[in-house]
Amino acid sequence: MSSRAEQPLPPLPLSTKARRTREQPISFLIETALRNPGLINLAAGLVDPLTLPVDECAEITRRILSDPSRGRAALQYDTTVGLRPLRQKLHEHIAALEGLAPRELGFTSDHIVVTTGSQQALYLVGDALLDPGDIVIAANPSYFVYTGTLQSLDAKVLCVPMDDDGMDVEAVAQLLARLEGEGRLPRVKLIYCTSYFDNPTGLSLSVARRKRLLEIVLSLRHRQRILIHEDAAYRELRYDGPAMRSMKSMDPDNRHTILSLTFSKPFAPGLKLGYTAMPDDLLHAVLQQKGNHDFGSANLAQHIALEAMRDGSYDKHVAVLIRSYRAKRDAILAALERFMPRDAGITWTHPHGGLYVWLTLPPSVDTSREAGIFDECVSHGVMYVPGEYCFQPDELGRIPQNHMRLSFGQVDPGQIAPGIERLAQVVRAQLTIEYSPQHVE
Amino acid sequence: MSSRAEQPLPPLPLSTKARRTREQPISFLIETALRNPGLINLAAGLVDPLTLPVDECAEITRRILSDPSRGRAALQYDTTVGLRPLRQKLHEHIAALEGLAPRELGFTSDHIVVTTGSQQALYLVGDALLDPGDIVIAANPSYFVYTGTLQSLDAKVLCVPMDDDGMDVEAVAQLLARLEGEGRLPRVKLIYCTSYFDNPTGLSLSVARRKRLLEIVLSLRHRQRILIHEDAAYRELRYDGPAMRSMKSMDPDNRHTILSLTFSKPFAPGLKLGYTAMPDDLLHAVLQQKGNHDFGSANLAQHIALEAMRDGSYDKHVAVLIRSYRAKRDAILAALERFMPRDAGITWTHPHGGLYVWLTLPPSVDTSREAGIFDECVSHGVMYVPGEYCFQPDELGRIPQNHMRLSFGQVDPGQIAPGIERLAQVVRAQLTIEYSPQHVE
Repeated sequence: MSSRAEQPLPPLPLSTKARRTREQPISFLIETALRNPGLINLAAGLVDPLTLPVDECAEITRRILSDPSRGRAALQYDTTVGLRPLRQKLHEHIAALEGLAPRELGFTSDHIVVTTGSQQALYLVGDALLDPGDIVIAANPSYFVYTGTLQSLDAKVLCVPMDDDGMDVEAVAQLLARLEGEGRLPRVKLIYCTSYFDNPTGLSLSVARRKRLLEIVLSLRHRQRILIHEDAAYRELRYDGPAMRSMKSMDPDNRHTILSLTFSKPFAPGLKLGYTAMPDDLLHAVLQQKGNHDFGSANLAQHIALEAMRDGSYDKHVAVLIRSYRAKRDAILAALERFMPRDAGITWTHPHGGLYVWLTLPPSVDTSREAGIFDECVSHGVMYVPGEYCFQPDELGRIPQNHMRLSFGQVDPGQIAPGIERLAQVVRAQLTIEYSPQHVE
Repeated sequence: MSSRAEQPLPPLPLSTKARRTREQPISFLIETALRNPGLINLAAGLVDPLTLPVDECAEITRRILSDPSRGRAALQYDTTVGLRPLRQKLHEHIAALEGLAPRELGFTSDHIVVTTGSQQALYLVGDALLDPGDIVIAANPSYFVYTGTLQSLDAKVLCVPMDDDGMDVEAVAQLLARLEGEGRLPRVKLIYCTSYFDNPTGLSLSVARRKRLLEIVLSLRHRQRILIHEDAAYRELRYDGPAMRSMKSMDPDNRHTILSLTFSKPFAPGLKLGYTAMPDDLLHAVLQQKGNHDFGSANLAQHIALEAMRDGSYDKHVAVLIRSYRAKRDAILAALERFMPRDAGITWTHPHGGLYVWLTLPPSVDTSREAGIFDECVSHGVMYVPGEYCFQPDELGRIPQNHMRLSFGQVDPGQIAPGIERLAQVVRAQLTIEYSPQHVE
């Protein structure tokens, strides 16, 4: 064998899927944050560490684990679908969010699956429905971790624009009509919609558009069963404006809608639990996949979540979060108002909930990772998420480069104004360079 | 629309993978157990509820959550790969299991990924390596949840026989030579091996065969990089016999082996944590997939696992489990000796660890779910896992039907002898039917 020792060994024979899968851009952002510990991080989609329910979880775990039989149940396996009393409680919880009685919902606790964060639900639904080349309709911009997942599954993401009322649902109708004309309707499986305080824009889908989107899907139901996947991760972080019912609550037959929620945003990411209500036949397929993935999410975490819902600490904690994040939302909007130049076509969203503000700069300003501004901001001690990550290319392969996602989630309240001030300095310098007739480069 | 109301709606357009995925037989077994609460359950692969570390976890969570900064870290997100200090501890732990210093291992803590149980590692490695039609070599019988996962991924499972020394590795060499002759070597990606106290047989791969299997894979390394996936879920539940080094520890370049371990068997399934050491390039691909699946397993559970390893409660608990399961292993072997007829070619394994005994009946006795014995046993108040689930069909599509997997994991110590007595009654009646010349059916 020594004569062959110098011969290069063959590469690892990865699957087609693995070769297709791209790195999530989030890895790069986390690395940048770690390399620059002094940075004011307006990029991280993390929740505020200061408002995590440490004392509540201490009391809850004490209660669970001081009772031997309950403690043993929490440390044993449970089922693939998730802890039954938790799912019952979640069913009641969703009803309360909708302002309905549990029996008024079109689904029961048997249609709820508990997952490892809501991300796993997004993945499993994709796994159950999507073959390579199948179509998912989403807004442009959209939640970039999900579109990365769809890329890995080799699904085709077709996007429609969005405005202050959320996804342009008439554009969805037109797109579906066009696809039907092209004979591609059978490939359309899902419409993905972050209907509450969207990641990345902070905007919500209006009530009128919710109704209309469901109507569009229903009008096609004899030709193709298209499911609306409503990702409501930020739903409970509502600071002002009306509560809105989900599309799921408008689907009495539980046939056309999927509603995903999570404990990560309104309670604690460390439990890594999400939950999703979905049609019966989809649930069956999702559970078969989950049986292969892990046959059930962490059971101790499910017992903690259940107890938090039972003893009222969940609701109390959401109220604490709302007060804290509302103040931070107000602070970031005030800082933008104060520091950001207003005379050059710069706009930003005014979210009623969630963790994000979406900043739009003049088209000439390039916020992408490769452009100078990103590094300039990092060297000024502030980081944002380049808006480019949140877009799918249009027919000409173009991606808007003039947006930033700003998060007020993790950042310390006192750092919001300085962070926006630093950002504004870099933006202002950029505008000077762009617009100054003296500039010769 | 009312004129169309009666028209049947089209079915849910599931993915090819979802349509291919079969229900895990475990669902049926769990249902049967739930419908028959008085049953002595020798089927469940669950750990003993009486030995779960409730007090230890109470003390550990108290310690973590009474420290605000540590509590906050545990309730926040961590990384996709898993908590760094936990992975460092796991690296030391694996070294200790091997009887080596950590620096003597061919991998570092950077090559360890923490997953949602070791099942997720099995799934992710498959996802990263296997295209439909790719080949995985396994023993017959094998762990049936994994072979179900491979079926869902559309991989081809080619099996070799096993005996008291585990998988027949010379048969692996012959199979690989045959596949190479047929030009199919590029499709061979993995050799799956439950090397310690196998599920379902309780048997281990001998040291000589471990070395030989690695040698076989190394001899092919210039033509095809084949990885040995060593599933060591039961490794720490060793009741007697020598400690054996893993194949991973014999792979100094960390190129040809994957070693999966878990907290579910030696500590608590409710944490739902597994961990796997793997080659660098595979890890990269696995993390990209995990980034899409869930971007990290439950962080609170990881903090608990870390603390259990740090404060010594993990090691103490393993010692408790070994004493308890050893007694149950002795009890099941004694009961088999006492009650099972020995004059009709009935044999069983004598495991040195793990949770299973594998019972072989005469070929004429059919233990499968459809045959009468299964229901007969249930009506006598005892349940086993039909051996058929653990086999892949041979070239002629045949599956042995004369085995039972008996687990002494979950069952109460006092129920082991009555359970085996009931089982033996049904078996004895079956033998009488089979062999009695008076019987006329």
